[in-house]
Amino acid sequence: MTIKEQVREMKLVSPYVANTTNAQRNKALEAIKEALAAKKAEIFEENKKDLELAEKEGVAPAVVKRLVFNEGKLSDVIKGIEQLMSLPDPLGKKTLYRQLDDGLTLNRVTCPIGVIGVIFEARPDAMVQIASLCIKSGNCAVLKGGKETSNTNRALFALIHDAVVSAGLEKGCLVLAETHSQIDELLECDGYVDLLIPRGSNAFVRYIMDHTKIPVMGHADGICHIYVDKDADQDQAIRIILDAKTQYTAACNAVETLLVHRDIAAEFLPKLHEAMAAEGILLRGTKEAVEIIEKGEKKDHLEQTEVSDFKEYLALTASVAVVADEKEAIDHINRYGSHHTDAIMTQNQETADRFMELVDSAGVYQNCSTRFADGFRYGFGAEVGISTSKLHARGPVGLEGLVTYKYKLYGQGQIVGDYASGRSQFHFKDL
Amino acid sequence: MTIKEQVREMKLVSPYVANTTNAQRNKALEAIKEALAAKKAEIFEENKKDLELAEKEGVAPAVVKRLVFNEGKLSDVIKGIEQLMSLPDPLGKKTLYRQLDDGLTLNRVTCPIGVIGVIFEARPDAMVQIASLCIKSGNCAVLKGGKETSNTNRALFALIHDAVVSAGLEKGCLVLAETHSQIDELLECDGYVDLLIPRGSNAFVRYIMDHTKIPVMGHADGICHIYVDKDADQDQAIRIILDAKTQYTAACNAVETLLVHRDIAAEFLPKLHEAMAAEGILLRGTKEAVEIIEKGEKKDHLEQTEVSDFKEYLALTASVAVVADEKEAIDHINRYGSHHTDAIMTQNQETADRFMELVDSAGVYQNCSTRFADGFRYGFGAEVGISTSKLHARGPVGLEGLVTYKYKLYGQGQIVGDYASGRSQFHFKDL
Repeated sequence: MTIKEQVREMKLVSPYVANTTNAQRNKALEAIKEALAAKKAEIFEENKKDLELAEKEGVAPAVVKRLVFNEGKLSDVIKGIEQLMSLPDPLGKKTLYRQLDDGLTLNRVTCPIGVIGVIFEARPDAMVQIASLCIKSGNCAVLKGGKETSNTNRALFALIHDAVVSAGLEKGCLVLAETHSQIDELLECDGYVDLLIPRGSNAFVRYIMDHTKIPVMGHADGICHIYVDKDADQDQAIRIILDAKTQYTAACNAVETLLVHRDIAAEFLPKLHEAMAAEGILLRGTKEAVEIIEKGEKKDHLEQTEVSDFKEYLALTASVAVVADEKEAIDHINRYGSHHTDAIMTQNQETADRFMELVDSAGVYQNCSTRFADGFRYGFGAEVGISTSKLHARGPVGLEGLVTYKYKLYGQGQIVGDYASGRSQFHFKDL
Repeated sequence: MTIKEQVREMKLVSPYVANTTNAQRNKALEAIKEALAAKKAEIFEENKKDLELAEKEGVAPAVVKRLVFNEGKLSDVIKGIEQLMSLPDPLGKKTLYRQLDDGLTLNRVTCPIGVIGVIFEARPDAMVQIASLCIKSGNCAVLKGGKETSNTNRALFALIHDAVVSAGLEKGCLVLAETHSQIDELLECDGYVDLLIPRGSNAFVRYIMDHTKIPVMGHADGICHIYVDKDADQDQAIRIILDAKTQYTAACNAVETLLVHRDIAAEFLPKLHEAMAAEGILLRGTKEAVEIIEKGEKKDHLEQTEVSDFKEYLALTASVAVVADEKEAIDHINRYGSHHTDAIMTQNQETADRFMELVDSAGVYQNCSTRFADGFRYGFGAEVGISTSKLHARGPVGLEGLVTYKYKLYGQGQIVGDYASGRSQFHFKDL
């Protein structure tokens, strides 16, 4: 069957998958957990094939590291599944319960989104995490992982699919996509796929957003800022900046731009530059910032640029500018940022509160690393992605972001004509 | 200034509008209310111009009726504003409050979406309702009403804008668009406009959805179904169907398709046809339905067609088909419906529950008219539109649908490196 045919069938079975109990969905997760443990040798074997191929093709060692699925990764994903199983049922939660009139009662109840397409990077553990999140939330899903781990993906998907069917869920509830042409097919399935979640490079996410009518959740850029206020604990700020820049440079929540209050620039910038240079980080500063750091003396790991050329580096490079006050920092971030995660370093709570209120981003932080923007670190068990859109879910997206709701109205023969004519009256009583 | 320039400015002021207090926003609403009362003669005068022009141009009387802004409409919108003022602040609500570790606290707090574009039909009362909803929820908005009421719109907008500025809100927070070319300009403002809400004809909403990268909330079709189960109270069902079809034929929540259980078809269909014909409604039925009604004798107000030709009529016409059971009804609705509002007529609660669980629509009703799908009738005070999307808001969209949230993380110097290395551990404690 083509992806399109499979998705059409998925759309029809999705209400039945939505109607499963939490016990049934947990049973499916338990079956996945057991199969992972039972078949690990097989999976490691498939993973070895992927790793060998990657090395043969000259994939960079840093990337190859992400392709690995070993005992450590296995234990992580099993822990994740256990955490998901222990979470309360995200479905069937009553979020509104209101009597509109005698015998006319409105309920708003959470339910799955329906059919979701997730396209993710070459990380075998992501396959397990994403499938588990979809199952726990009663969603059907088309899963497409990175091609560098296609052998591992195939083995993991087969095991997950068997487990799900053994727990009594519909056979058509999970589909594996493997080729790029299948992604293009998926993009044309508007009306059948309710949501697409692309993960990966900026260019890839933009491609998805620009080539489909299906709603897309995710983010393209991640230009995160750290603003160092005049009332900052400067040593703490440097420690946090180094973590935010170096702990995982390729992450969307790594810091890219530093803004420094003018009152402390002369004291702070040289210290910052020294600490950054020691870690091999290139600072790209505005004229003012560079002059303060150089004090007439040419420095390494320093380059002059313009604000208009600040960008997302995903490397050991950061931009830096001097600002007059937190107002200028806020306006800079709202204008040039990507509304992902932005932090202020300050011991002044009033300044922090203003910054966190006025910066228009999914995450606004005080005195901690932007790298905390992550579903696991927020306690969501896992995440299906991070969203910079303001609709539906914003920030790291866990189970809650995979559900919607429906309104159920129970009547006893009521018609609108009676209310329009004044014969009946609404009385709106929350129950 | 062009719309684009105004929207760019709006984007920059929007965080400051978001940061206003509920008291300030209520003050703006109070000022609108007072200005409406004080300047009503002027507005009625402008409205008269619109009505005269409409009549001169031969606009249908049913449409002209909707263009009217008189004492009755004025009193309705003032009541709406009072209701909005009495509602609690939708902003700054804490929806998650969690300690991740000692001294590392995560808050999730509601905030406005930011910049919204609303394009609505020629109903002057809609201008006041939509502006009031945006103000109460701290959003900035570009408002474009139907051109048939452009004089009234202009007078109402001027009054609303003055009131808002007098209450201390940013001047740039509300903008009036008046021409179609300004809509096209607005569609290009992705990155600045966070959400578009188009209201109007199917074709118009589709045009908007197909010509912008901005997220769109709304619905194109409204093919609502009523399924009459074998355990229905048949007289009640007919009364409800007549209301759902005739109370406001042009509404998106009017019923378009009727499905009848085969066991009662011979008894119910002729009664239904008689009642519908008496109201001048044309029934378009499948071969089976038509044969049951005709019993060999040609009937008025009846036409044979195929399921594939069932559509949204927005007129005194309805489709009808016979189904084997509620399972067939559910699958029909999920396949051919538009996921708007669908109802079951039955006295059997088990059947109703199954139907309401499995029909994948924004509203699923038992024994009442589909016409109840409306923000006012749900007790939301007003609505900015009805959404058939499953992301963000679904069904009638009131204040809650105009807010999003941000994550605020308060730290004391925490870095992710310490958690990655195991030096620190998250303990996730909801506060």
